[in-house]
Amino acid sequence: MKKMILDVDTGVDDALAIAYAVGQSDVELLGITTTFGVAPVEYSYRNTKSVLGSLNKDVPVYKGSKEPLKRERVHDGKIHGNDGIGETLGYVEESETITKDAVDFIIEQTKKYKSDLIIVTTGPLTNLARAIDKEPQIMKYVGRIVTMGGAVASPGNVNKFAEANISVDPDAADFVFKSRLPITLVGLDVTRKTLLNKDNVKEWERIGTSSAKFFAAFTQFYLDAYKKIHPTLKGCALHDPLAVGIALYPELVRTIPMHIEVDLSEEVLGRTVENTNLEDTEPNTLVCLQVDSKRFTEDFFNKVNNILSV
Amino acid sequence: MKKMILDVDTGVDDALAIAYAVGQSDVELLGITTTFGVAPVEYSYRNTKSVLGSLNKDVPVYKGSKEPLKRERVHDGKIHGNDGIGETLGYVEESETITKDAVDFIIEQTKKYKSDLIIVTTGPLTNLARAIDKEPQIMKYVGRIVTMGGAVASPGNVNKFAEANISVDPDAADFVFKSRLPITLVGLDVTRKTLLNKDNVKEWERIGTSSAKFFAAFTQFYLDAYKKIHPTLKGCALHDPLAVGIALYPELVRTIPMHIEVDLSEEVLGRTVENTNLEDTEPNTLVCLQVDSKRFTEDFFNKVNNILSV
Repeated sequence: MKKMILDVDTGVDDALAIAYAVGQSDVELLGITTTFGVAPVEYSYRNTKSVLGSLNKDVPVYKGSKEPLKRERVHDGKIHGNDGIGETLGYVEESETITKDAVDFIIEQTKKYKSDLIIVTTGPLTNLARAIDKEPQIMKYVGRIVTMGGAVASPGNVNKFAEANISVDPDAADFVFKSRLPITLVGLDVTRKTLLNKDNVKEWERIGTSSAKFFAAFTQFYLDAYKKIHPTLKGCALHDPLAVGIALYPELVRTIPMHIEVDLSEEVLGRTVENTNLEDTEPNTLVCLQVDSKRFTEDFFNKVNNILSV
Repeated sequence: MKKMILDVDTGVDDALAIAYAVGQSDVELLGITTTFGVAPVEYSYRNTKSVLGSLNKDVPVYKGSKEPLKRERVHDGKIHGNDGIGETLGYVEESETITKDAVDFIIEQTKKYKSDLIIVTTGPLTNLARAIDKEPQIMKYVGRIVTMGGAVASPGNVNKFAEANISVDPDAADFVFKSRLPITLVGLDVTRKTLLNKDNVKEWERIGTSSAKFFAAFTQFYLDAYKKIHPTLKGCALHDPLAVGIALYPELVRTIPMHIEVDLSEEVLGRTVENTNLEDTEPNTLVCLQVDSKRFTEDFFNKVNNILSV
């Protein structure tokens, strides 16, 4: 059976990705590591545990990075709410005891499962960068890294150039791309083409379990925020769930191997771009550029609706 | 037999594309239409005729657009020389009589050959935009348009965003992309991966015919200019020849269908980017993103070296 770690900054669509991952029968979710991102790490940790609790799933959760590698943390609650989860859970009390750091968990599991392990990241790449920096000789054995992040052929969502996960810690992303680990990049190029709409939320309301009502509430917040920012889009993007989908079903996408780098200049900070001017242009990333949206969304809603019905 | 029109702004690599096209046995080059671009149209017209003359090939050449659709013409002789052809031909005397305008020739041939016609553009899209604007009902029957232009996943060459052919007339490019004609975009994403180096120029010097010496001279200028701008590249890019190659051998590249638009905002004027936020996101372009460089350059040098040996 496939082994997976989810590295998240939960986050509305991270929560959807978690539900989708625990709803799969052919993957063992070893644990979920959390990081700052759409909210401080205390929030993403709490949100992750609440989401798992609502789904009645017992998966270990680990707290990770509080800050970007080199820069100030930037946080904007407009899209995911100030609590990161659509203003459904509110303020977080100060932290519980932590058994193990997220970075150490990632290293330990990679040492154990090597190429059988898939790491799916749906937040900034800070935890992963720190794991690679700490134990490069262990981390090089990881099977695959599937990263929701970047925008290669299409515009960013922070500005015309940068996507949010890369933008909040561009140095971590830069470090990970340079590591030569086997990255599949699930960027806005494909995630914007996989949408959730108000009918899907209504279906969760209809299902009416406590988990379904919780999911409907935070997803409705996200849908409303999306509507303000992208009035022409017919829903909100399933960014993070798509990364889980591609990790399990690579045939959902067409990829092109490219040498991706992160532009660290102020002008376009965090832009993910193919560099073809370097001496070294060997591909370091499989960039997802075309997706079978219909097949993915069908599978996503089948499995998530099922798990929310229990 | 395939029918082809080359629409050029000769231009060093346009000259290489012309040699490659006339060196093909399985395509009929109906004519070459010229436009302003790397030099004024008087120069690109003269240069095209001189290149054909040196190769002893009798192909009709037509003069086209002198200016972009809406903007001032910008011209910089750094890469192709002030004469557009590596300072080998110098100043152009005022124009000869023109038998037919480039735009009318394009329309006339499209009416005649419809889906059997491939138009390969290696300069700004001004002639093509004017042809489509003038006769949309005829132009919609064209078989394929293969355009050297743009940079979708990689940086531009005018700046970080824009490629030169799109940049000099972004309005024309915008109009062509919106026309829904079947475009294959051969951008910097692939052309930068197909290089000509100093050994190739030495081989032309060794061949020693007058055409080979002419080609060696203007290509050496281009190679030197490239060296200054891209010191890490191991040669100069075969931008325009690759468009001819892909027109004839589509299997040289992997393409992804995308809805490409030209960003007309001042900040990133001329950026070719996938738009996934519009209501209408149906693909309008096949974007070339991966190329079999070895196979292409072998075919290119085989055919061009042959024709320069006669």
